[in-house]
Amino acid sequence: MTDGVDTVKKYQFASDNYAGICPEALQAMEAANRGYACSYGDDPWTEKACRLLRDLFETDCEVFFVFNGTAANSLALASLCHSYNSIICHETSHVETDECGASEFFSNGTKILLVSGGHGKVDLEAVEHTVKRRTDIHYPKPKALSITQATELGTLYSVEELQAVGELARRLDLKLHMDGARFANAVATLGAAPAELTWKAGVDVLCFGGTKNGMAVGEAIIFFNRDLASEFDYRCKQAGQLASKMRFLAAPWVGMLESGAWLTRAANANACAARLEARLREIPGVGIRFPRQANSVFADFSPEVAAALQERGWHFYSFIGSGGARFMCSWETTEADVDLLAADLSAVASRHG
Amino acid sequence: MTDGVDTVKKYQFASDNYAGICPEALQAMEAANRGYACSYGDDPWTEKACRLLRDLFETDCEVFFVFNGTAANSLALASLCHSYNSIICHETSHVETDECGASEFFSNGTKILLVSGGHGKVDLEAVEHTVKRRTDIHYPKPKALSITQATELGTLYSVEELQAVGELARRLDLKLHMDGARFANAVATLGAAPAELTWKAGVDVLCFGGTKNGMAVGEAIIFFNRDLASEFDYRCKQAGQLASKMRFLAAPWVGMLESGAWLTRAANANACAARLEARLREIPGVGIRFPRQANSVFADFSPEVAAALQERGWHFYSFIGSGGARFMCSWETTEADVDLLAADLSAVASRHG
Amino acid sequence: MTDGVDTVKKYQFASDNYAGICPEALQAMEAANRGYACSYGDDPWTEKACRLLRDLFETDCEVFFVFNGTAANSLALASLCHSYNSIICHETSHVETDECGASEFFSNGTKILLVSGGHGKVDLEAVEHTVKRRTDIHYPKPKALSITQATELGTLYSVEELQAVGELARRLDLKLHMDGARFANAVATLGAAPAELTWKAGVDVLCFGGTKNGMAVGEAIIFFNRDLASEFDYRCKQAGQLASKMRFLAAPWVGMLESGAWLTRAANANACAARLEARLREIPGVGIRFPRQANSVFADFSPEVAAALQERGWHFYSFIGSGGARFMCSWETTEADVDLLAADLSAVASRHG
Amino acid sequence: MTDGVDTVKKYQFASDNYAGICPEALQAMEAANRGYACSYGDDPWTEKACRLLRDLFETDCEVFFVFNGTAANSLALASLCHSYNSIICHETSHVETDECGASEFFSNGTKILLVSGGHGKVDLEAVEHTVKRRTDIHYPKPKALSITQATELGTLYSVEELQAVGELARRLDLKLHMDGARFANAVATLGAAPAELTWKAGVDVLCFGGTKNGMAVGEAIIFFNRDLASEFDYRCKQAGQLASKMRFLAAPWVGMLESGAWLTRAANANACAARLEARLREIPGVGIRFPRQANSVFADFSPEVAAALQERGWHFYSFIGSGGARFMCSWETTEADVDLLAADLSAVASRHG
Repeated sequence: MTDGVDTVKKYQFASDNYAGICPEALQAMEAANRGYACSYGDDPWTEKACRLLRDLFETDCEVFFVFNGTAANSLALASLCHSYNSIICHETSHVETDECGASEFFSNGTKILLVSGGHGKVDLEAVEHTVKRRTDIHYPKPKALSITQATELGTLYSVEELQAVGELARRLDLKLHMDGARFANAVATLGAAPAELTWKAGVDVLCFGGTKNGMAVGEAIIFFNRDLASEFDYRCKQAGQLASKMRFLAAPWVGMLESGAWLTRAANANACAARLEARLREIPGVGIRFPRQANSVFADFSPEVAAALQERGWHFYSFIGSGGARFMCSWETTEADVDLLAADLSAVASRHG
Repeated sequence: MTDGVDTVKKYQFASDNYAGICPEALQAMEAANRGYACSYGDDPWTEKACRLLRDLFETDCEVFFVFNGTAANSLALASLCHSYNSIICHETSHVETDECGASEFFSNGTKILLVSGGHGKVDLEAVEHTVKRRTDIHYPKPKALSITQATELGTLYSVEELQAVGELARRLDLKLHMDGARFANAVATLGAAPAELTWKAGVDVLCFGGTKNGMAVGEAIIFFNRDLASEFDYRCKQAGQLASKMRFLAAPWVGMLESGAWLTRAANANACAARLEARLREIPGVGIRFPRQANSVFADFSPEVAAALQERGWHFYSFIGSGGARFMCSWETTEADVDLLAADLSAVASRHG
Repeated sequence: MTDGVDTVKKYQFASDNYAGICPEALQAMEAANRGYACSYGDDPWTEKACRLLRDLFETDCEVFFVFNGTAANSLALASLCHSYNSIICHETSHVETDECGASEFFSNGTKILLVSGGHGKVDLEAVEHTVKRRTDIHYPKPKALSITQATELGTLYSVEELQAVGELARRLDLKLHMDGARFANAVATLGAAPAELTWKAGVDVLCFGGTKNGMAVGEAIIFFNRDLASEFDYRCKQAGQLASKMRFLAAPWVGMLESGAWLTRAANANACAARLEARLREIPGVGIRFPRQANSVFADFSPEVAAALQERGWHFYSFIGSGGARFMCSWETTEADVDLLAADLSAVASRHG
Repeated sequence: MTDGVDTVKKYQFASDNYAGICPEALQAMEAANRGYACSYGDDPWTEKACRLLRDLFETDCEVFFVFNGTAANSLALASLCHSYNSIICHETSHVETDECGASEFFSNGTKILLVSGGHGKVDLEAVEHTVKRRTDIHYPKPKALSITQATELGTLYSVEELQAVGELARRLDLKLHMDGARFANAVATLGAAPAELTWKAGVDVLCFGGTKNGMAVGEAIIFFNRDLASEFDYRCKQAGQLASKMRFLAAPWVGMLESGAWLTRAANANACAARLEARLREIPGVGIRFPRQANSVFADFSPEVAAALQERGWHFYSFIGSGGARFMCSWETTEADVDLLAADLSAVASRHG
């Protein structure tokens, strides 16, 4: 079995979910594993993790720890909507494409309305049009706008773009949700304060990703608008998202935040993606899609090249079935991994390009 | 913080959720944390954990790993019921008393019908009466019977009792669900084959508890009736119960099952409870409620004794507000813990008894 | 077919749902059936019905017309609760016993908590105990109190009792819902102003029954607490409760309210029940359960008497399977019907008593 | 108020929901309003209506009567899907555009996947592509195909087209639902046997519209696949769609089916639409969109013409905000209405064309 695992290692650029637990997160779990602790969040690790997150965001936000990103997004959105409301998000958003209708389920039927927009970011005119094109009771009433930072295409909303989104949301009376499964990668690139990227721009609730950042399991739901968190603890409990041994969800946050690893590990992933982008740009016949701003690189090359690369054992997502590919770097990716991939891609491209 | 945690340790009999991760589970997580692995269960650890569970139950069952017991019970029951059906369970069952309406939520309104019964076990005549007293469409139609093994009162269904439950369920056309949050403790006491305690007695689906058994997080949903597992993977995904880094939910099962710790750790908890029961029986003015068969002891003593014991720092659940108490032992409980508790209880009882 | 219908007529005391459409309601439907009218409530009949209801209740309430009582209760309660909340009502309430889990369905899992109380009215101490016995997040948080006026046992809350209920609800932070499927019968007996029996006593939302009052179909949901009606039109539409040809739901209200038939027809039903009670009290071996205050009489007699009465073709509900019976009078019941029933019951009682 | 209603009459082509109750339906309601009848469908009118529908469709189908089309579609689709499934329908279908997320609500989160297709009919390749483009558990699994006959654009599926749809559904393992809010109009034009247009072509469940056909309220849900109707009566009850005085929902069906009015009234609406189309084709500057096959005409003309027509008091839906219009005829529309509209349109077109 170990061999099985190892074989995967060297050739892995498919997802940051393929990575393991980073040392800082694991050590914190081990440290939390001494003796007894009260359950359901009434423990010192949870208390400390919440305090550290409030410090990080420089505000007295409400914090809840849940098991995964689908639950985090769905529970957060459910607290913003009724079943007869709708949620507006980008057509490539995870909420739409990869959560199997979880938001519709948790909200008991809330409809998701899609808008397009360049580089995976919502087009503001499209959002406004979507809100205004139907105002009769025969169609779900838009109540929330959900954006993803970093986006599913590896791009970022700048602080200015976020402020514009926030202003629009306020003007249209939409609550603003941010899917931050890769929020750390966004902060690492933008270098802005987390507060600037969230509540100061009008974000009501952030789903801050821990798993892709290097933890085994767990996301943090952070309500900057505390009114929206009313009875949210009941909502989590009823939805099967309240951990009994909560310390093991909370401790990794303590470990990542105290050590700064939440940011340095994300920075490594971003740096590897940047290095990969640079290498790929040197290869004839290989193009780059979208501005590379976080930890993924979307490359264009012929289906023959893609096939040849896969024959060499590389794992990556083929992109929109066009022969292109998404290469995702994680906290665990190394420069050596990047160079090896680039070398193989260069080799197959020269033969099949 | 560490001190904070340690202080709790010595005086802890409140819940088996207060215990940490047992070595076999933690070591397996660490072993699984080498390199990359495919996500969402397509990894060798998940494959192996499923195989080991099939071996344990001596049948080709369908296995799913979810995050906690509330989700496990609710998802399993949702696969047995429609919103207009009802679930019959004991009035003390966790599904009714401690899941905040999760089954009603996951099943979109399924009603829970309560029956009583001695020692936390469903009375079969009461079940039959509940099914037959209303057969009109103005009341939800019973479709599932949910039993708990070990029960919330620390008692067990014998193999014969399980067979009788299974026969009744078949006769009444009810699907049979077993909440096995402490299934390991039941096996440790009864010494019967897991198969005898489940599918051979007519159990359709078992929620096998990992957390209380010594893991950080995670339960196994085991469908012996494979037809009921149709599309269950979609159900888990939509409900936010599909772990991306599944190997860390699955590996602890490998560790516990390969080492046998799932049983030996449960046996330790049961033995500590038995030792505690024996000690308490020697104390004048202290009574024992219910046959002590698993890892909890329900004791009777005056409110004054309870208060004095709490003043000495002991954690336990006060039972039905009557001055009685539930003492719960875990894999982590030691004979020394038990003796210390018994000595303190004896001391306060002699003074306040 | 007509014969089939006629046979039923003479022997009918089973339910006020067995009655037809009273003339004032039918004539209004016919009057509304001239030419075209805008759909979905944007018509003059709906406007007028709302105005008449606001006049009747002497307040600027929000009014919605839906198809039946189950939907009215469930939608109203859904506007008061989240899925993780609970609704407190009497164990005999229609919401619990005759709506097949509709409230749980419309609210996506809200739990119904039952209290007992004499004569079908909630015991206030039991309500307070139910709210206070669990305040942890592992059990649904009570958010609404639902009472029935007239009750399912044919009894009434006096103005003073309603005021006490309203005060308790305010004190416990519970929203107050009134199932008024037979509200007209309550007003007819109590002679109090509808305002006194509802919002002045603290009722937030009333489901005012039209069907049992003499209409073909339709109930009015009346929000005295207008904030709770926010987006309720969307809720009705999504739940399949917005009539396209709304004028035919609204017009009967105009007909009943303008003519005063809503009250006189209810008064007839009550008078018939009073006459029946008086007759039954004269019959040896026949007892009366509960104070007879509205349009139903609950009588006690031997199973033999019940059987003999049914053999003579009488329709009535046998009560708690005890040989007793519920006799329900409607707008259509006549003194002759009552006398005929009393004579037959007297005859069979003398033989089987 | 009567004036208010009358004013609307002359200028009404907005919707067939603006029409009243046709004589055959109203007379049947009046005939049913003699004496008592058992409630909840246990009455001779309901029995007869079901028998007549079985005769009409020449098969032993299961029949349920509900209050409106949104509920009929949503309940029928809920019986075909789980929350994690998806429903495929045309982007212009009522289920998507005019039911405020009812299907998502009744199915607890089922996702609606849209396909395009000429003339409001689903493109079969698009359906197949939609089923096959995602087969992973991260996206809802398609389970039902919903088509509308007549379509929202006033077009029809021919028998051959329906057979092709049915074959595709079978091949893709999709259940087939037909929204027949205007099914009668389709039968009137196609002249085929209802059986040919439904179950013989593979339709599993039909929602047969009564309201637009001339009734006050009520639709029939007809399961040709009887297995799918299992416990559907409970589903209707829980969803607030079981009428207590069911005879008044069923009797109009008896009146319409016995008299043949269901077809002749639909034929009148179609004939008026045909006459209108012919007149409009004679008017310079006025175009016709889509083949006119049922009871609506979609016309193209300048926004100035539309405005001028509205100034003259005509009610119609402006179509895709382009200055075009939908003119809907009903059982109540007369040739005189059509001629008057055509004359006014001709007049304003000559001035503003």
